[in-house]
Amino acid sequence: MIGRLNHVAIAVRDLESACAVYRDTLGARLSPAVPQPEHGVTTVFIELPNTKIELLAPLGADSPIARFLERNADGGIHHICYEVDDILAARDRLVEKGARVLGSGEPKIGAHGKPVLFLHPKDFCGTLVELEQA
Amino acid sequence: MIGRLNHVAIAVRDLESACAVYRDTLGARLSPAVPQPEHGVTTVFIELPNTKIELLAPLGADSPIARFLERNADGGIHHICYEVDDILAARDRLVEKGARVLGSGEPKIGAHGKPVLFLHPKDFCGTLVELEQA
Repeated sequence: MIGRLNHVAIAVRDLESACAVYRDTLGARLSPAVPQPEHGVTTVFIELPNTKIELLAPLGADSPIARFLERNADGGIHHICYEVDDILAARDRLVEKGARVLGSGEPKIGAHGKPVLFLHPKDFCGTLVELEQA
Repeated sequence: MIGRLNHVAIAVRDLESACAVYRDTLGARLSPAVPQPEHGVTTVFIELPNTKIELLAPLGADSPIARFLERNADGGIHHICYEVDDILAARDRLVEKGARVLGSGEPKIGAHGKPVLFLHPKDFCGTLVELEQA
């Protein structure tokens, strides 16, 4: 069912210094920072030949990554995103297998403009999994 | 400098149930489990179209992932591995930029039979980074 690894998301407190780490120290190519007020984050993509790393910095008062950054002061890997062909079929399969889908269970439009769902970390080896319709 | 994302490694306590999650719930293709006593882990690879997920379970008394699993009872993302063309040139660049390389600073032969280095999470957005010579 899962297809490509769409991205690995790394939450950071200070976007500028995280960009410097990836650009200057690791020599990677970065996209411009994009504030996404509707998602409570500012994003920067690190473009690798086969996938992307997404740097996430909190934006606004109720950022969904604020609590994660309280627990992980240096930042850390926040979630991993797999592509699926059909997000509703994927959701139905997961629910049938007993896995928990976060929120209402209805896909939302994610930071890339595509339907996404998040899955409960306790059901997926302690990792927050995002599914994105490819 | 960094090239492809070689793999994302997820540490798990119970390899069988982690395999079931990826095989049965997420419908992915898994490689057979390979005990790697010299690395203190048993590995299973999840083959995605563009990269791999590496499941790591502790093996033996002094597994390098034992402490991580004490702190993360459900498991979690342990490290992320980027490919580099020349690991010694990469190491020298990182040291010049002030980043800390773990251990002696000399590459070791990793679980895939290639030279690897691990970098200090505090210098890389709170994430443990492995570099592997491609």
